Amino acid sequence: MNELDIYKKQNFANRVGLGHRPALITVDFVLSFTDPEHFGGGNITDAVQATVPLLAAARAQGWPIAHTRVVYADDGSDGGAFTKKAPGLLKLTETSPLSRLVAEMDPQPGELIVRKRQASGFFGTDLAGWLTWHGIDTVLITGCTTSGCVRATVVDAVSHNYRTIVVTDCVGDRAMGPHEANLFDMGQKYADLMTRDEILAHYGVAG
Amino acid sequence: MNELDIYKKQNFANRVGLGHRPALITVDFVLSFTDPEHFGGGNITDAVQATVPLLAAARAQGWPIAHTRVVYADDGSDGGAFTKKAPGLLKLTETSPLSRLVAEMDPQPGELIVRKRQASGFFGTDLAGWLTWHGIDTVLITGCTTSGCVRATVVDAVSHNYRTIVVTDCVGDRAMGPHEANLFDMGQKYADLMTRDEILAHYGVAG
Amino acid sequence: MNELDIYKKQNFANRVGLGHRPALITVDFVLSFTDPEHFGGGNITDAVQATVPLLAAARAQGWPIAHTRVVYADDGSDGGAFTKKAPGLLKLTETSPLSRLVAEMDPQPGELIVRKRQASGFFGTDLAGWLTWHGIDTVLITGCTTSGCVRATVVDAVSHNYRTIVVTDCVGDRAMGPHEANLFDMGQKYADLMTRDEILAHYGVAG
Amino acid sequence: MNELDIYKKQNFANRVGLGHRPALITVDFVLSFTDPEHFGGGNITDAVQATVPLLAAARAQGWPIAHTRVVYADDGSDGGAFTKKAPGLLKLTETSPLSRLVAEMDPQPGELIVRKRQASGFFGTDLAGWLTWHGIDTVLITGCTTSGCVRATVVDAVSHNYRTIVVTDCVGDRAMGPHEANLFDMGQKYADLMTRDEILAHYGVAG
Repeated sequence: MNELDIYKKQNFANRVGLGHRPALITVDFVLSFTDPEHFGGGNITDAVQATVPLLAAARAQGWPIAHTRVVYADDGSDGGAFTKKAPGLLKLTETSPLSRLVAEMDPQPGELIVRKRQASGFFGTDLAGWLTWHGIDTVLITGCTTSGCVRATVVDAVSHNYRTIVVTDCVGDRAMGPHEANLFDMGQKYADLMTRDEILAHYGVAG
Repeated sequence: MNELDIYKKQNFANRVGLGHRPALITVDFVLSFTDPEHFGGGNITDAVQATVPLLAAARAQGWPIAHTRVVYADDGSDGGAFTKKAPGLLKLTETSPLSRLVAEMDPQPGELIVRKRQASGFFGTDLAGWLTWHGIDTVLITGCTTSGCVRATVVDAVSHNYRTIVVTDCVGDRAMGPHEANLFDMGQKYADLMTRDEILAHYGVAG
Repeated sequence: MNELDIYKKQNFANRVGLGHRPALITVDFVLSFTDPEHFGGGNITDAVQATVPLLAAARAQGWPIAHTRVVYADDGSDGGAFTKKAPGLLKLTETSPLSRLVAEMDPQPGELIVRKRQASGFFGTDLAGWLTWHGIDTVLITGCTTSGCVRATVVDAVSHNYRTIVVTDCVGDRAMGPHEANLFDMGQKYADLMTRDEILAHYGVAG
Repeated sequence: MNELDIYKKQNFANRVGLGHRPALITVDFVLSFTDPEHFGGGNITDAVQATVPLLAAARAQGWPIAHTRVVYADDGSDGGAFTKKAPGLLKLTETSPLSRLVAEMDPQPGELIVRKRQASGFFGTDLAGWLTWHGIDTVLITGCTTSGCVRATVVDAVSHNYRTIVVTDCVGDRAMGPHEANLFDMGQKYADLMTRDEILAHYGVAG
């Protein structure tokens, strides 16, 4: 029996489905994650470009939109276990270009900017409460990296009981092996995997 | 440049190290996860056996010990997005043998039993507060599955700022591809990967 | 200037209002909190009786209903700082009559039972995620005590961004001074204060 | 039986005690809370002054120190239920003088600044994880208001299982009735009430 067979036999990978009140979340589309000299590489810039029409559609539809950024204090006073594993993260301070959203995600008024210090966009932030305030039942997850902050955000989103959709062409990673492995895990256990155009078609929205 | 090279270049996989006050966490070592007819398979039973001496050592040392179980209400009233993806989980009720800890993990008085409904042992539980009460700085993570509840528990543990150690021979999965892929991700970004015997040697404890 | 004047001048006590999707939460209506020999007294039994028609109405309307209970492990392994202040709480174990819901709140299938160890019904539980899954925007808070677990649950409810309503005749306390003082605080800063009949009238529901 | 008697009979108000690793938390000592034209009044400025020697002692001892501020986005995109009750809070933006720490609390490098949007300093922030990273077992709570953000922070602190101490002369409120009522509640159920000098004497520290 191959690996897919055991998941099928154990009845994973059912669909959670799209709900009536989606929000768009972009995870860590910041300059340091599109630059291979820092945390970028792989297909991350492709994911940014693929997200542009989805962001435009979400704005046209009035869907709530949240953008996460990694931001540590200038003096590193809020670092911890995570920054022991990856100390370069401490360079991402409020005013550093490294933590600036890419130009394509330049936020408009009313869009939530989530400053985070852990992998998940939900951990130690008010993202969940903001989704509650907006009556959201479905989160469309884009961003990077698939094997890091996207995965962590997805696991928290489903744990908060949001219908969670990974927009497969709008997430990227510095390396393709982890990208593919994490799409597999998420599709089996936590989220529906859909392309941007499948989502737009479902909602009858032009990209 | 291969995939390991980009992680090395970007300065991941530094060691967080073992602290002075460890706790042992066993994740979902319950009967349905050691049975391939339900959620088991792969190397999970090996992981149970490898954990037995670590559990004995933790008891001998007086380290706090917590065991997680997946437990849903008899009427399924607490199911949600996660049980849409994997509906078989709803069979794991308080009195079902499917959610019973394996005999090898039979808890002793004072060990915490964490009933959870999401992947992470921390989400919607009082595990973090219990670790605080016991003055813990380091969590040793064992259990199953590596690509599911172990990974989710590890990400939350590091986000709570515990020094997080994945005990590599004491975690298991129904399928080896996801097992290996998740060990890679965790070792790069969230946790130190150590064998049981390396940990016991560090603390000068016989297994 | 008296104390009410300063709150008015500083623009507190605005109304948050009732939303379209209410849930009913009963906080700790368990036997030990209706018995003055344990944690009861004051107007708590009155609050139980006043809640009976609201519970019936919520059931008739199909509003989601959650009941909280304080439940500690039989061996007290999950006690902590809170049980240092009030050690009698440790007697409230899963099977003790002291932690049993009063007969008037006997739950029906589909109603969530929230086992908690802290003051707030949200802390270390999956109550917030369950409200999300049910698309709730408004929580109607009943139970006891007003100055303890009701207040803590209300502060968390508003922090999660639910429109939070304290049902004034359906909350009770062992002592009237704290009851009144906490109604004042909650009405100024966190919740709207409404009687049961005002709420039922708003929704056009017979009690 | 008067109100104190019932609490005594029911075995509340036991002491949790001071631990070995304290942290100092100052709650919302910002300009708008010392100004009666905004959110101030009562004994808040007295509390600021009383905290100055405690802050100096904490720095001399090397105790971790965290300061909370209320900070909303410039466009109010992160407001919600709490700001419906008290809309004036939305004026407290990152660069507004209204959310600036009072000069007496001017932070030194390494002190954590917690930006919060809810009453509790723990809710939607990384304060708990930061305390974990610093190995803290005891939190000394100062700030304002006693009946608002101090109370909410105290309830969360004890729920996280920190030994929680309200420094009675270092907390203040715009109105004395709520100040006294909340000190009573906290002392009975959540925290030990101690003066600054009692704490300094316990640790053998000069104020």
